[in-house]
Amino acid sequence: MPIYNAPTKDIQFVLHDLLKVSEQDIPGFDDLDRDFTSAVVEEAGKVASEVLHPLNVVGDTEGCVMENGVVRTPTGFKEAFEQMKDGGWTAMDCDPEYGGQGLPYVMHTAAQEPFVSANMAFNMYQGLTHGAYSAIHAHGSDEQKQKFLPKMVSCEWTGTMNLTEPHCGTDLGLMRTKAVPQDNGSYKISGQKIFISAGEHDMADNIIHLVLAKIQGGPEGIKGVSLFIVPKFLVNDDGSLGARNGATCGKIEEKMGIHGNSTCVMNYDEAEGYLIGEEHKGMRAMFTMMNEARLGVGLQGYAQAESAYQNAVAYANDRLQGRDVTGAKNPDGPADPLIVHPDIRRNLMDQKSFVEGARALTYWGANLIDRAHKNSDADADGLISLMTPVIKGFLTDKGFEYATAAQQVYGGHGYIEEWGMSQYARDARIAMIYEGANGVQALDLVGRKLAQDGGKHVMAFFEMIKTFIKENESNEALSKDFLTPLKAASKDLQAAGMYFMQNATKPNNALSGSYDFMHMMGHVCLGLMWARMAKAAMEALEGGASDTEFYETKIATGRFYMARQLPATAMHLARINTGGDTVMALEAANF
Amino acid sequence: MPIYNAPTKDIQFVLHDLLKVSEQDIPGFDDLDRDFTSAVVEEAGKVASEVLHPLNVVGDTEGCVMENGVVRTPTGFKEAFEQMKDGGWTAMDCDPEYGGQGLPYVMHTAAQEPFVSANMAFNMYQGLTHGAYSAIHAHGSDEQKQKFLPKMVSCEWTGTMNLTEPHCGTDLGLMRTKAVPQDNGSYKISGQKIFISAGEHDMADNIIHLVLAKIQGGPEGIKGVSLFIVPKFLVNDDGSLGARNGATCGKIEEKMGIHGNSTCVMNYDEAEGYLIGEEHKGMRAMFTMMNEARLGVGLQGYAQAESAYQNAVAYANDRLQGRDVTGAKNPDGPADPLIVHPDIRRNLMDQKSFVEGARALTYWGANLIDRAHKNSDADADGLISLMTPVIKGFLTDKGFEYATAAQQVYGGHGYIEEWGMSQYARDARIAMIYEGANGVQALDLVGRKLAQDGGKHVMAFFEMIKTFIKENESNEALSKDFLTPLKAASKDLQAAGMYFMQNATKPNNALSGSYDFMHMMGHVCLGLMWARMAKAAMEALEGGASDTEFYETKIATGRFYMARQLPATAMHLARINTGGDTVMALEAANF
Repeated sequence: MPIYNAPTKDIQFVLHDLLKVSEQDIPGFDDLDRDFTSAVVEEAGKVASEVLHPLNVVGDTEGCVMENGVVRTPTGFKEAFEQMKDGGWTAMDCDPEYGGQGLPYVMHTAAQEPFVSANMAFNMYQGLTHGAYSAIHAHGSDEQKQKFLPKMVSCEWTGTMNLTEPHCGTDLGLMRTKAVPQDNGSYKISGQKIFISAGEHDMADNIIHLVLAKIQGGPEGIKGVSLFIVPKFLVNDDGSLGARNGATCGKIEEKMGIHGNSTCVMNYDEAEGYLIGEEHKGMRAMFTMMNEARLGVGLQGYAQAESAYQNAVAYANDRLQGRDVTGAKNPDGPADPLIVHPDIRRNLMDQKSFVEGARALTYWGANLIDRAHKNSDADADGLISLMTPVIKGFLTDKGFEYATAAQQVYGGHGYIEEWGMSQYARDARIAMIYEGANGVQALDLVGRKLAQDGGKHVMAFFEMIKTFIKENESNEALSKDFLTPLKAASKDLQAAGMYFMQNATKPNNALSGSYDFMHMMGHVCLGLMWARMAKAAMEALEGGASDTEFYETKIATGRFYMARQLPATAMHLARINTGGDTVMALEAANF
Repeated sequence: MPIYNAPTKDIQFVLHDLLKVSEQDIPGFDDLDRDFTSAVVEEAGKVASEVLHPLNVVGDTEGCVMENGVVRTPTGFKEAFEQMKDGGWTAMDCDPEYGGQGLPYVMHTAAQEPFVSANMAFNMYQGLTHGAYSAIHAHGSDEQKQKFLPKMVSCEWTGTMNLTEPHCGTDLGLMRTKAVPQDNGSYKISGQKIFISAGEHDMADNIIHLVLAKIQGGPEGIKGVSLFIVPKFLVNDDGSLGARNGATCGKIEEKMGIHGNSTCVMNYDEAEGYLIGEEHKGMRAMFTMMNEARLGVGLQGYAQAESAYQNAVAYANDRLQGRDVTGAKNPDGPADPLIVHPDIRRNLMDQKSFVEGARALTYWGANLIDRAHKNSDADADGLISLMTPVIKGFLTDKGFEYATAAQQVYGGHGYIEEWGMSQYARDARIAMIYEGANGVQALDLVGRKLAQDGGKHVMAFFEMIKTFIKENESNEALSKDFLTPLKAASKDLQAAGMYFMQNATKPNNALSGSYDFMHMMGHVCLGLMWARMAKAAMEALEGGASDTEFYETKIATGRFYMARQLPATAMHLARINTGGDTVMALEAANF
């Protein structure tokens, strides 16, 4: 049976030592002192370990079952969902006007991490609801907000996002779902949507589907797409549930993983729907919440790696196999534990240094979202917009890679479902695909975000690194092991950006290198996070922190990342510099 | 429904243009002319596509079921197995004295590839039998050979390999299975073995288990391990089947993939067994066939990637999504096919250039095995011994990586089992684990093979590269795009070897870099193969070959590999050069 213990100390380290949240000039942040955040994170960790994690394997094994149009979630999911609602975990950062607690997004993120690590498939039910809540909150009318949000904040009703159709995913301009205006101001929605997470289930009284559709007679392509609220049950003016709407689940998909979440084919058959925001501005409404949604998926990536890592460490300490080449570590036993072997350590350090760097990047990103929203800070908004494809693409690619690496520590047992390591890899795999496949993230980064606002945000990013290095270069402890590799990596990244600019006449030169650029930038971001974390840990030690082992481990882990991971940037640059010609050389028929 | 078409042209290219098999001075090779190998490969491809591949999804979906001790293979497996036997596919390279066809191992390898690509789980039944055949053939007594081999060559009886126990896999010295000598010269074997592929099933009249066990009173640890033949049914002197032996399947494991193969817990309860070779020399008997077995697993790695790649190409040509940024390629359609997008091409070229390079490396390795065996060539034996961990470790790591990359081309559809791409990734995953987990391959390479025979074989490897570069440096077409990157990569690899030697006082410096070294050497090997293939293709074009498109595509694919993949060696070197200190820094308790 796999284990999971929330890394509360590491979470607190990021919130306080690194981000110093309680000292920030953002409304509400001064409440985030160590005691408060500790109480929240400890309690979230407890719920994650005791309630959600035991259901992770259950969800994988049982999956969701549809009988006569009714979808049954795995044993125990319903009761656990009640506990999540009762504990107020679904409402943390929501608007108090609709029953939310109004906490910062970074705090929501810190509480979400243990839930996602413990049971990703389960947590998607509230995750999707949160996404739908955000869209209505940002673009809905007052009446819509009053009608739908309170029940969604409490998760009495859950939400879904309906974008994909059988023939279109990334290219939503090809969409066929139609919306026909009715005399009473509503619309009749007809069409089929696929891959709808939490599309139908038995854990809520109502499901509020957000559906992209084209209003008849509107513009062609992506410019004719609008966003609609389509409830499973119509809602009467007094808030009670009315007639069943024409929104039904056609089937549940058999997937590689996240079996505990019901991924539905949804059929809309003249379903009653209500326009959100303006006609034909559906994509804008959808993109408003994209930064949050994609950051949440990036979190899924490293959160699965965290869970898998914890188990790999336990197994490496427990399993006796072979002897330390430098001398027996367990001389009275039949063999030494796996963890004595350098290649097992190399693997575990890869995992550990990634996960901790990824956590820092994600919380920093969540913090930027708070700053952008609560302080209306356009620079923070621009920066998180730039970071979003990196957080989503890099953290999910690496999250899957390291979930797989953790599985490898188990040898043959890693391949047997009974041990639970296969599930982490299978579940983590989806995060590379949904919310925009990672190739699309790379395209977004290189094709759009780099040049956004005249390249202002990427320049600010480089400036931030330069400033950090300059401010700390007299710090010897930091300089050699952290600042020098960070400087080199950042230089590689700038050189790649320069290559793209100088070769812009042939756009395929940049686009062929987009994936490498995304990974390169991911490494630079984690390098920056590690340099900052090392500085924070050194300061804590200088300040006389009692837990010296914790902080020294932090610094040593960072040193590993800088030494062993940052050299990847030079490789990505070398690839990029070869241009697009070898990539585009073949005729399609010759593949 | 996934597709599979055997890449017969590519196989022929490797056999003839690259390896020039029919011109080699190895007994039997002069029969391998183009017509002969073409007939074999075409027919193998037909069986693979028409018989085995349709059963791949069936095997995954149904799996193997045990009821009352009887294991039922998936629908259609039994009939397909009969076809394999009838076609003589199980006997190709086996000794004619026992009913084999006596063909070279490289020919066996070329025929196996389509079978493995089409249905890896199915092919393991004959693959394991082949391994058991080889062990008995190399170390068994004449009587044992006469008794068991003819039926194993024909696959009327199948074979298994029993190494792992619940508490030991890599460290077989910890083994507990006991062998008690009997008066009649046989042994009573008792113990439990796990992860026994094809351990019990309904496709053969008898199953010949090869079991590692310790003879009571023998030396401690690995030096006390012997190898035994333990048939499911005892075999009478007239060859008829006798009593049921005490070798039973305890359960079938639930695995991440290869569901079509029955992975069994095997219980031996005073089962009658017959010693193979000498007492306490079981490991030596096992290792005799390790080069072949590990080469076969390396083949599984790229063969799954080949299958996945074919489907990814089909999908990328079929799925319309978005527009080519340089101008519509399908202006009359609603969108362009995915394959116009540079990042999709980058992904497909990664896959294609790996698979074709891996095929060349594997066949070259098989050819070395032929040379070692049939010409008693000690240099060839040393070289394949050096290459074996690279072929196994690198090709399976990359095979899984690219099966996953092919899945990514499908977007959300890649995650849905119905489309079949998940299975390629899930099946390919095991190849990184069994026959020695890839970390153990890296350890074998760096800790043992580099220094073998005084480093003679690794020096021969470098000399071979140097000679090739020298012989061809006046060839301008080859020089810039192929020889220059090959030289740089080879130099990186040598520098890494030098680092290991110069820092040998602390063995953790080398062992911490072993995994990077294995990957680095994999890239150098594929770089060498691509340089040779490019040369062969250029020669074919100069010689007036009619299929210019095929050869030009070959060269362009090689150019991509050299430009985009070989830069990885510098990264691996940079990592290695940071030494073992950051890897070993933490106390076990601080992970």
